[in-house]
Amino acid sequence: MDLPLGYRYAAAYAGIRQAEKDDLGLIVSGLPAAAAAVFTQNRVQAAPVKLCRRHLAASRGAVGAIVVNAGNANCATRTGNAAALACCRSAARLLRLPVAQVLPASTGVIGVELDSKLIVNALPRLVAGLREDAFGSVARAIMTTDLVPKEAFAEVKLRRGTVRIAGMTKGSGMIQPRMATTLGFILTDAQIPAAMLRRMLRRAVESSYNRLSVDGDTSTNDTLLLLANGASGVRPDAKEMAAVEERITAVAEDLARSIARDGEGARKLITILISGASTDDAAARLARSIANSPLVKTAVAGSDPNWGRILSAAGNAGVAFDPRKADIDMQGVPVCRGGLAARFSEAELKRKLDAAECEIRFTLRGKGKGQARFWTCDFTEGYIRINASYRT
Amino acid sequence: MDLPLGYRYAAAYAGIRQAEKDDLGLIVSGLPAAAAAVFTQNRVQAAPVKLCRRHLAASRGAVGAIVVNAGNANCATRTGNAAALACCRSAARLLRLPVAQVLPASTGVIGVELDSKLIVNALPRLVAGLREDAFGSVARAIMTTDLVPKEAFAEVKLRRGTVRIAGMTKGSGMIQPRMATTLGFILTDAQIPAAMLRRMLRRAVESSYNRLSVDGDTSTNDTLLLLANGASGVRPDAKEMAAVEERITAVAEDLARSIARDGEGARKLITILISGASTDDAAARLARSIANSPLVKTAVAGSDPNWGRILSAAGNAGVAFDPRKADIDMQGVPVCRGGLAARFSEAELKRKLDAAECEIRFTLRGKGKGQARFWTCDFTEGYIRINASYRT
Repeated sequence: MDLPLGYRYAAAYAGIRQAEKDDLGLIVSGLPAAAAAVFTQNRVQAAPVKLCRRHLAASRGAVGAIVVNAGNANCATRTGNAAALACCRSAARLLRLPVAQVLPASTGVIGVELDSKLIVNALPRLVAGLREDAFGSVARAIMTTDLVPKEAFAEVKLRRGTVRIAGMTKGSGMIQPRMATTLGFILTDAQIPAAMLRRMLRRAVESSYNRLSVDGDTSTNDTLLLLANGASGVRPDAKEMAAVEERITAVAEDLARSIARDGEGARKLITILISGASTDDAAARLARSIANSPLVKTAVAGSDPNWGRILSAAGNAGVAFDPRKADIDMQGVPVCRGGLAARFSEAELKRKLDAAECEIRFTLRGKGKGQARFWTCDFTEGYIRINASYRT
Repeated sequence: MDLPLGYRYAAAYAGIRQAEKDDLGLIVSGLPAAAAAVFTQNRVQAAPVKLCRRHLAASRGAVGAIVVNAGNANCATRTGNAAALACCRSAARLLRLPVAQVLPASTGVIGVELDSKLIVNALPRLVAGLREDAFGSVARAIMTTDLVPKEAFAEVKLRRGTVRIAGMTKGSGMIQPRMATTLGFILTDAQIPAAMLRRMLRRAVESSYNRLSVDGDTSTNDTLLLLANGASGVRPDAKEMAAVEERITAVAEDLARSIARDGEGARKLITILISGASTDDAAARLARSIANSPLVKTAVAGSDPNWGRILSAAGNAGVAFDPRKADIDMQGVPVCRGGLAARFSEAELKRKLDAAECEIRFTLRGKGKGQARFWTCDFTEGYIRINASYRT
């Protein structure tokens, strides 16, 4: 699938993290792109998150470039605002853009000063090396504990031509998106007015990043940006806009799922499907409570069909329901009917739970129409190993 | 310290759990004791929890005996109510008590039918073996993944004589008390009216069981009972009542702390101290969010003074605060001042964090008077090992 037109990319090792892997990325749009953004709901917000908001307000949502680094979150830092601004200024000067059209994003350790000189010194090299086909190099540069780069692509054929969508994201721990998570950049060459773009992103996030948890921790740096630069020359009409939104949402869902699959220490992607709740919101709360239960996640790690923990976790969601109307299926096998044990072969189900993808279906019998899909991962010794010595 | 007067105890192996360790306990009060109780807030509640409520209502809070088993939660079971009732009936007949004066409690796996015959057959042996000094045998019989039995004792010298308090509890995983947790029985020989006893328990729980989390999961069987049988012949006067309540609260706090210390896989007890929040409730929410962060708990496991995770977890508590006013100390060492890194020797603090008890102090500068103390434990590979194969 082709990349969206009119974007160029570059990545390099600026020396921010110790391991000599690219830690700085640059995304540039030839035309000023309309942009929509969602940010972390954590009370503690990193300097680049705050500057991103200010720049989007000042530029009225027009974006020319994104400067993103891994290895340092630039959060809870004395020089945070100045450092983020220095990076944007440097990129703006090199790219001949108003500074407000450059957005910063950072990910990595919290509470360590970010040396902006490392970024300012590396930027000329990145600008000189900008290429239309280097999307993947930026996706790799933003990785922290991620084992794999995370990309998703789509295109939509419209009456007046084709528009393309490409997304990248990072994240593996400190993941419980609430309105946004981690870092994610979705680019399209469709021509979409900013107000519509914001609505699209808000809805796409609801079914993707906001339905994802690795460890229940929401980071201080979560930033998801959606850019539309119109380089395809195609402005979808009202009807076509729905098709574009559908593909943007699919890309966001692909990216969110890829984060859960690559959760720190994870061996299994868990998809949780809720139906029969009173509202979609109640369904999402049930799903989140199951997804965040360490007891459910360790049971899946051990391929143990311990459905009592799923029922108990649902009972802790703060959602009213009658346990006698609860059905649970694991890997398509009924394990609980009406709140009681169903007959199933434990040995056979244990084998099915050894798969790389596990599905938990929690259904409330009755008239409720509320449903939710949610992604998480199993909980293994690997998570502990990674996080007991993240900084050392 | 002496045990409260007028109580007798017995324990035996009834065959409920596979390992041949005592799994059935009986506590009998010679005089009908006034009783107060708090139960799990999980929407899914085990049969013994429901029957306990009914019996307390029917007997107007008068209790003659507690029948408690480990190895099976009797939750999400077809025959749950009948099984719990059969056990109470059998004990009532043997002890010549009204059935409503017998309270049931269960802990163990969810969703497996409890064979009440095992208990009914074992009860005559327990009744025949009742002894005033066998308190510890019941504390051992209620253990599941607990490594140590959990007991706490106190006595208060009053004008007219001495009253004694003894408490036992169990619990190691599926621990996040909200109004109650796990199983806990606190007995006193003081003479205390039931209404006052309920107020005492409610307040004692607030600063003990409700300030404790091992893994953020609230069980379906949590039951905490406070019994006062008056066997000391001493009825504290209004002023003395405060001293009795203080000791009961101290026993409840001792028991709660002992659960955190013995959390599944835990090597360290973590005490979290919050001050300067707008209200005590806000302080408790900040404490709970820090206590439930797997990233904070794994950092402590690895003796990593990663205070950024503490700040980020506080930011996720749903409590408004200004990060620039946040101070954090670990083991008495300032690691964060005004939301920024403090100067400290990382090597020295790492050594201090190797201790069996770790203290995290989170202070908001300003006029807020809200404070909270909260207990949790570190998060190690041991938790995963225990819970990936709990049933197998």
